[in-house]
Amino acid sequence: MNDILEQLTVILEQRRQADAEDSYVASLHRKGLNKILEKVGEEAIETVLAAKDCGADASPQHRQALIGETADLWFHSLVMLSHLDLSAAQVLEELEKRFNISGLVEKASRTGQ
Amino acid sequence: MNDILEQLTVILEQRRQADAEDSYVASLHRKGLNKILEKVGEEAIETVLAAKDCGADASPQHRQALIGETADLWFHSLVMLSHLDLSAAQVLEELEKRFNISGLVEKASRTGQ
Amino acid sequence: MNDILEQLTVILEQRRQADAEDSYVASLHRKGLNKILEKVGEEAIETVLAAKDCGADASPQHRQALIGETADLWFHSLVMLSHLDLSAAQVLEELEKRFNISGLVEKASRTGQ
Amino acid sequence: MNDILEQLTVILEQRRQADAEDSYVASLHRKGLNKILEKVGEEAIETVLAAKDCGADASPQHRQALIGETADLWFHSLVMLSHLDLSAAQVLEELEKRFNISGLVEKASRTGQ
Repeated sequence: MNDILEQLTVILEQRRQADAEDSYVASLHRKGLNKILEKVGEEAIETVLAAKDCGADASPQHRQALIGETADLWFHSLVMLSHLDLSAAQVLEELEKRFNISGLVEKASRTGQ
Repeated sequence: MNDILEQLTVILEQRRQADAEDSYVASLHRKGLNKILEKVGEEAIETVLAAKDCGADASPQHRQALIGETADLWFHSLVMLSHLDLSAAQVLEELEKRFNISGLVEKASRTGQ
Repeated sequence: MNDILEQLTVILEQRRQADAEDSYVASLHRKGLNKILEKVGEEAIETVLAAKDCGADASPQHRQALIGETADLWFHSLVMLSHLDLSAAQVLEELEKRFNISGLVEKASRTGQ
Repeated sequence: MNDILEQLTVILEQRRQADAEDSYVASLHRKGLNKILEKVGEEAIETVLAAKDCGADASPQHRQALIGETADLWFHSLVMLSHLDLSAAQVLEELEKRFNISGLVEKASRTGQ
């Protein structure tokens, strides 16, 4: 899954500048922060509902629906970051710090010797 | 930002098996799906509130707060996926397909010749 | 504000039985619980956003927008209760119990003598 | 269910002025709008989760849990209105207008003759 978020970030920045009639992303930016945040909230609710349906009955359709809703949630949170001139990289760095991932990798590579 | 989500996925799977007293992640799994989804919902609301504060006044503190809340949101959605035996890789594949990212990369490399 | 919720409850029960093409309420019931809960969630987010806009700038327009979003939130939670054969009266009884309102009224009437 | 919201509005205004250590309502006001809105959002998610559990299995416990969560949601939205110097009466008037409730009552009384 390397680089997918990185490439997505590039694509989202390009689309931010596009014509709002041609691009859903551009139309979200034109509508403004409240519209983008409504979408983040809506997709969070739809993710929660899809997860509940998945918990009760883990059919392949329900599992795929949850993947799709989580993708929607992450996608709209990327648009939110872009709208406020922030990036996925900064969020991932924050997670890296919290979980001390570099340290963990270093330790793993030392152990591997 | 390569691999951070991948490493985080590994860490989250390890912690899922840990003692609930030692690990926040393990304690969430023990409390069950509803508790995990409450957290996803709460972090979505806190993200939206932090983004509104960021929109009105883009102080470094407000921007860092939004980074932190988005990290919380993504983190808890990773725990949700793990709880239901799904993974970040599947969500990223879905985003890849939607944005035709491999194709785009290929096209970019051809254009670059 | 006496009786408005009571009358609204009656109206919502009537519309539940109506033709889905003629009535928004009937169409929500036909679409099912998930659709109704998506609306509850969406209206909660829109209420939160309207309240943030109200907090920063209490213009009459922003205040009226918050009134409207809160009305949407309460309305859709009434449809949810109706869909699950519950009623506003049961929610109000719960609030009455928690706040010991009858007791308070009694005490007030005694004090009033 | 007459007057319960009205009485609750009076109680909430009294508690707004109370000592934050003695009153949950006063402590919410002291913590400010963001804290109140976090609670509105959290209770909306908990309402949605309780409704899903109710939809799948309408046990008395699940039904009572949904009544309780909806009461929490309405309660915190009343605190929000109070914090912004708005009231339940204004929200109910909005619902009255939308559903033309006075008109309906009038028409019903004419029909009843």
